[in-house]
Amino acid sequence: MRAERDVDLAAAVVAKLRDGMEQMGLDALLPMAPENVVYAAGVLPPSLRTVRTRMACCLIPAEGPTEMIVVALEKGAVEAACRLDQITGYREFEQDAVTVAAESLRERGLSDGAIGVETTYLPKASFDQLQGSLPRAKLIAVDELLAETRSIKTRAEIDSIQLIGEAAQRIGEECIGLVASSDPESRLGELISGKYSEVGGRLTMLVVGSGPRSALPNAVPTDRKLEPGDVVRVDIIGTRDNYCSDVARTAVVGEPSGQQLRLYRTLREIHDRILSRLAPGVVTTDLYSIYRDAMQKAKLPYYHFVGHGLGITLHEDPFISDIRPVVLAPGMVLCIEPMTLIEGEFGMQIEDEVVITPDGCRLITQAGDLLRIEA
Amino acid sequence: MRAERDVDLAAAVVAKLRDGMEQMGLDALLPMAPENVVYAAGVLPPSLRTVRTRMACCLIPAEGPTEMIVVALEKGAVEAACRLDQITGYREFEQDAVTVAAESLRERGLSDGAIGVETTYLPKASFDQLQGSLPRAKLIAVDELLAETRSIKTRAEIDSIQLIGEAAQRIGEECIGLVASSDPESRLGELISGKYSEVGGRLTMLVVGSGPRSALPNAVPTDRKLEPGDVVRVDIIGTRDNYCSDVARTAVVGEPSGQQLRLYRTLREIHDRILSRLAPGVVTTDLYSIYRDAMQKAKLPYYHFVGHGLGITLHEDPFISDIRPVVLAPGMVLCIEPMTLIEGEFGMQIEDEVVITPDGCRLITQAGDLLRIEA
Repeated sequence: MRAERDVDLAAAVVAKLRDGMEQMGLDALLPMAPENVVYAAGVLPPSLRTVRTRMACCLIPAEGPTEMIVVALEKGAVEAACRLDQITGYREFEQDAVTVAAESLRERGLSDGAIGVETTYLPKASFDQLQGSLPRAKLIAVDELLAETRSIKTRAEIDSIQLIGEAAQRIGEECIGLVASSDPESRLGELISGKYSEVGGRLTMLVVGSGPRSALPNAVPTDRKLEPGDVVRVDIIGTRDNYCSDVARTAVVGEPSGQQLRLYRTLREIHDRILSRLAPGVVTTDLYSIYRDAMQKAKLPYYHFVGHGLGITLHEDPFISDIRPVVLAPGMVLCIEPMTLIEGEFGMQIEDEVVITPDGCRLITQAGDLLRIEA
Repeated sequence: MRAERDVDLAAAVVAKLRDGMEQMGLDALLPMAPENVVYAAGVLPPSLRTVRTRMACCLIPAEGPTEMIVVALEKGAVEAACRLDQITGYREFEQDAVTVAAESLRERGLSDGAIGVETTYLPKASFDQLQGSLPRAKLIAVDELLAETRSIKTRAEIDSIQLIGEAAQRIGEECIGLVASSDPESRLGELISGKYSEVGGRLTMLVVGSGPRSALPNAVPTDRKLEPGDVVRVDIIGTRDNYCSDVARTAVVGEPSGQQLRLYRTLREIHDRILSRLAPGVVTTDLYSIYRDAMQKAKLPYYHFVGHGLGITLHEDPFISDIRPVVLAPGMVLCIEPMTLIEGEFGMQIEDEVVITPDGCRLITQAGDLLRIEA
């Protein structure tokens, strides 16, 4: 079952990438950024994120076998999960991923081809090395092609996101129910971290901010103790099986104040209005206006975006901001996260994950009322 | 105490960087790779590793105030720990780190200066953007300058490495004593992970390989159950307070075989011989020869390096391999890790951390006999 799903995903992803390549007239594509390596190959060499020089490179030709190029000592580690047709190892310190990719392109008769590279990722030195190895090749930026392709998820991808997203919601709400006044933020952090590991996940950035710290954008849990009246903002960001969760909840210790209740209600109304609008054809900037206008009317500080794509990376296309309009399409997975951070006082956030469907959207998670922590 | 140490470290680091800049005739240095941002500024913006586009840039001019440029929403998160003189925020989606750095360089009268950039990190697109913003500037590769400067640790850096290194050794040996035959590898992994968190650390890559899996280079813990006769290889790689630990130990479940004892003794002898040679002036390639020659003589598979620098990153200069000779100097922190991976059978490794001192070396950790796990 697992194997079959993986093969389907590989075929779907390579086919999607080749469609995009055809439109751009590319002879080959070289995904190298970690998120694009995972997307194309289904696996990340274990030390790619810890040892920067051990770059990996996928080679997707318009025709012919696909290939993954990894540091030789990790060939064994990626073999079982790699979805590409062949794996080539390069010797650390002596060879590097782009030079080996250049050799493979030459052998495939593509030394003067149009080769897609990620110019927002590929280091200047590696770009020059690749161009030096293939002086007649045209190196073309494919950062947008990859981001756009990844923004429409396959069915298998949506399943992966849903699995860890639902878990993140359950864990967050459960753990908020397990702490009480005078527990430190770190206690809540440890509970969430433990349960997230139990479902096979790994937290990459956990926000637990209480009291005035709830107004800090990315507050990691500290020893600060929860006090009656505190707002506690929790944002559970992590990955499982290469896909991210990003679910945020807000709670109050003891009885919420009238201001806290009003503010949460305002965010909840904005949240519901945006969710009710989500459908193919809707433009992201119009969704951002709902948030911005309501926050301006309520005289509350607002964030520079109210949502973003979610997938192999935490923040990916499309962003829901007022900078660049993107038209929603079926298969997009979005986080919708109205938030207000009142410096020195408190911050509140409601963040849910949704899938755009042919006729609207489907919620992966769903926030309810302001959560309570025992005083 | 903490604050004072941090100020000392900042002064020491900026002074060291400026010495190197003077030798290269640089007017400014722009560290942007995460490890160099941490080195220069003492802090990493929380989402730099999770959101690739939120680049940070340190600006170290030959004269005048130093500066850190970060995405505006994380200015608050870095403020308390940042050791540079000023922090500038840039608006996500609208501005980016290199353009803001270019503006600052222009205001400082350095628009036609010699500017050091990391060509093995800086993406091609960012390099072009920086050059486009400062057409008369000379952009010069400083990757080696930064790596060499970082290879000689300050006293405060050695203290940080020692703290988490000693903890990693203690935790590894303790947890190996807590598992028994029929426990899964993942049980040992969870124990180590829990204790490592308790001391304020975060594992970045934990190796727990048992039986034939001990021969895989970077084996993450799985559900495989320990069996009598298994070799168990554990490598504890993580960070605390921005500095890494990297300590590996080998154990056997139940009574070790004669072959296992012989092999461990061989590795131990190589380990001791290398440790006894460590001193300023010694050349890394000569140390690698000790390992390679002994392994060839024993007809055992050997790795392409037997040690590496350790600091903010896991693997950094100098590498102890036969590729590039580096002369050891006081203040270097090295991992010495003789290892043999016999595919399909088992792998053994002994890894300790050491500091090069003016008259030899000082061990941060020290492996003993082959460890035992209850059968």
